[in-house]
Amino acid sequence: MSDYRYLVRKWVKPEDLNQHGALFGGRLLQWVDEEAAIVAVTQLGTIDVVTRHMSEIGFSARADRGDLLELEYRIVAFGRTSITLSCRVENAVTGHEVLTLDRIVFVAVDAAGVPVAHGRTEATSGTERLRTAG
Amino acid sequence: MSDYRYLVRKWVKPEDLNQHGALFGGRLLQWVDEEAAIVAVTQLGTIDVVTRHMSEIGFSARADRGDLLELEYRIVAFGRTSITLSCRVENAVTGHEVLTLDRIVFVAVDAAGVPVAHGRTEATSGTERLRTAG
Amino acid sequence: MSDYRYLVRKWVKPEDLNQHGALFGGRLLQWVDEEAAIVAVTQLGTIDVVTRHMSEIGFSARADRGDLLELEYRIVAFGRTSITLSCRVENAVTGHEVLTLDRIVFVAVDAAGVPVAHGRTEATSGTERLRTAG
Amino acid sequence: MSDYRYLVRKWVKPEDLNQHGALFGGRLLQWVDEEAAIVAVTQLGTIDVVTRHMSEIGFSARADRGDLLELEYRIVAFGRTSITLSCRVENAVTGHEVLTLDRIVFVAVDAAGVPVAHGRTEATSGTERLRTAG
Amino acid sequence: MSDYRYLVRKWVKPEDLNQHGALFGGRLLQWVDEEAAIVAVTQLGTIDVVTRHMSEIGFSARADRGDLLELEYRIVAFGRTSITLSCRVENAVTGHEVLTLDRIVFVAVDAAGVPVAHGRTEATSGTERLRTAG
Amino acid sequence: MSDYRYLVRKWVKPEDLNQHGALFGGRLLQWVDEEAAIVAVTQLGTIDVVTRHMSEIGFSARADRGDLLELEYRIVAFGRTSITLSCRVENAVTGHEVLTLDRIVFVAVDAAGVPVAHGRTEATSGTERLRTAG
Repeated sequence: MSDYRYLVRKWVKPEDLNQHGALFGGRLLQWVDEEAAIVAVTQLGTIDVVTRHMSEIGFSARADRGDLLELEYRIVAFGRTSITLSCRVENAVTGHEVLTLDRIVFVAVDAAGVPVAHGRTEATSGTERLRTAG
Repeated sequence: MSDYRYLVRKWVKPEDLNQHGALFGGRLLQWVDEEAAIVAVTQLGTIDVVTRHMSEIGFSARADRGDLLELEYRIVAFGRTSITLSCRVENAVTGHEVLTLDRIVFVAVDAAGVPVAHGRTEATSGTERLRTAG
Repeated sequence: MSDYRYLVRKWVKPEDLNQHGALFGGRLLQWVDEEAAIVAVTQLGTIDVVTRHMSEIGFSARADRGDLLELEYRIVAFGRTSITLSCRVENAVTGHEVLTLDRIVFVAVDAAGVPVAHGRTEATSGTERLRTAG
Repeated sequence: MSDYRYLVRKWVKPEDLNQHGALFGGRLLQWVDEEAAIVAVTQLGTIDVVTRHMSEIGFSARADRGDLLELEYRIVAFGRTSITLSCRVENAVTGHEVLTLDRIVFVAVDAAGVPVAHGRTEATSGTERLRTAG
Repeated sequence: MSDYRYLVRKWVKPEDLNQHGALFGGRLLQWVDEEAAIVAVTQLGTIDVVTRHMSEIGFSARADRGDLLELEYRIVAFGRTSITLSCRVENAVTGHEVLTLDRIVFVAVDAAGVPVAHGRTEATSGTERLRTAG
Repeated sequence: MSDYRYLVRKWVKPEDLNQHGALFGGRLLQWVDEEAAIVAVTQLGTIDVVTRHMSEIGFSARADRGDLLELEYRIVAFGRTSITLSCRVENAVTGHEVLTLDRIVFVAVDAAGVPVAHGRTEATSGTERLRTAG
């Protein structure tokens, strides 16, 4: 695993809450996947990526309205057509771990959805791989 | 596993699509969790349930705008404070399997989020367990 | 009217509530129309359908946050280019009827929006009419 | 019917479109109800109103992305606890009538949802009835 | 500045509130821009407009759930490719001014985003400039 | 101005686009304000903050579907009850500057919305100021 570390902060708002005032598991998963996709596209240098696999997910503590979550992503591995990330979510207000996900795998695809080699083997901290030639 | 089977149909709309016109993995997971929660509350007879665990998830085929998805839930097991469901998502238009999830676990909790025994051991096809006394 | 019966369950969430904590009439109508459209496309075997008419609508009881609604659809009639459904919404928690709608009419259309004959005369419980040839 | 006339303009955006690029019937109904509720609260001077009834609804022409709709409301009658409005929606780009609704009835309610007399018998063009005493 | 005056009413709903129950500044700005865009397109007779500039914005009073806001737009000036509007937002329930914006500038553009002359110099109260030829 | 620098990445999705396929100015402003609020609360150590002022805003280039935006925040000044940030938005795909905002001011408030002294004078890169005592 590289030293790469990407942090995203999310505020829990009323529309993210379930019937008894706690953050929806499904809403949290949507955030985890969407922000992971941003990591994948900046690393692979293409916006044509799809989620392929997630390892098992543990929801360890709840989050409430007004809590601030920190999603921390790391790069587990670069494959030929894929990239594997990990994600850990912490509640910045309570200090508790909210979710752990060891592996979320994205695959670079062509217009027909067929996996294509991406040629990347090292992490970048910037977005320069997405830049179109000027 | 009981004979219980719960079907939900979802239409893929523009707001559910990612940058290259395919359904977001995170949006699909949000649906899978939200509808599973509905199964859990109707079975356990309480709206105070939280997602506790998901087993690994495979995304096997894509879905596009206008596709109709079928989410099929089954009950894997009733625990003392929990219920375990499985989910399989199929694209009704292409006939392909879109997602498989062997176990999604919900736990009944009290107002403080502490697990409580729910007392259920058998599936019901209706919603009568949610009915408040008249 | 055939024996066909299609059930959808919806959970009332904070974003569905009006200023005094009750479900918006307009949100309920959006659900009623969207889920009815899913019935129409699975019956007619085409995603190109439009809402054409609704008979008068009575809102008979309110729904609050955390309530679970059951939308029950039935098929009233197959026309040459149309299908007519009925819808009844019940609050599973209170047991009260929330909305009744005797007729909601969808029409199959071509790309220009002109009605086209759909050739269906019988209900189906599945989604096989949407399946594209393999 | 009084001379009162209230106009609202809505732009059809991507998230409002169905699978074949036309405005969802259900989305249009949501707009019609939400804006009608604003008329009702400004006339009755209370935000505690609920939708009680809609007369039959005809969808006469489609609307597409980028079209601008005009919703025109008029007051049909003041009841003891209710107000009845009419609504007509026109597509400003094509000039076609999109929807007609002869009667949408709102009822003023107390905190428990029980109808209460509102004491209004005349239309106002302003919002002064909502103003809290200073 | 012409006599033109365009009024929009918005109801503050749960999904518009921040963590401590007040209207989000960003949500208010989204409304201010979206409704201003409707003014711009009806005045310029083209839906191809983009926001180019906003003068400084003061948020002078808060708005809470259930409050009704009035957005009042006026036309400051017609440019060759642009139109400049002002906006003032008042809370109809408290009577307080919520936001003031002296100038919001929209520019008419072609398909490539290049400014184009719009040929308008006078305000209209209707939507006839958007009407496509019959 | 301190060395503090906070980066947020946002992907432009279909629901963020206006009628001619470009990012809505109002949606961009919503993002700018919401993420700025996260900076403000982590710096001031309270979730009770409100947007008070924005300096003039220039929209210098458009963003299209699939573009990735980078929002870069810096701290301009700590006041007694306020914090002033700057924001610059760049399109990572085209390399163009999309928006500049020299000053966005947030104020810490009590439950009644009255400004309160926050006691902060230095930037922090973490979220420890939000942590509730254990």
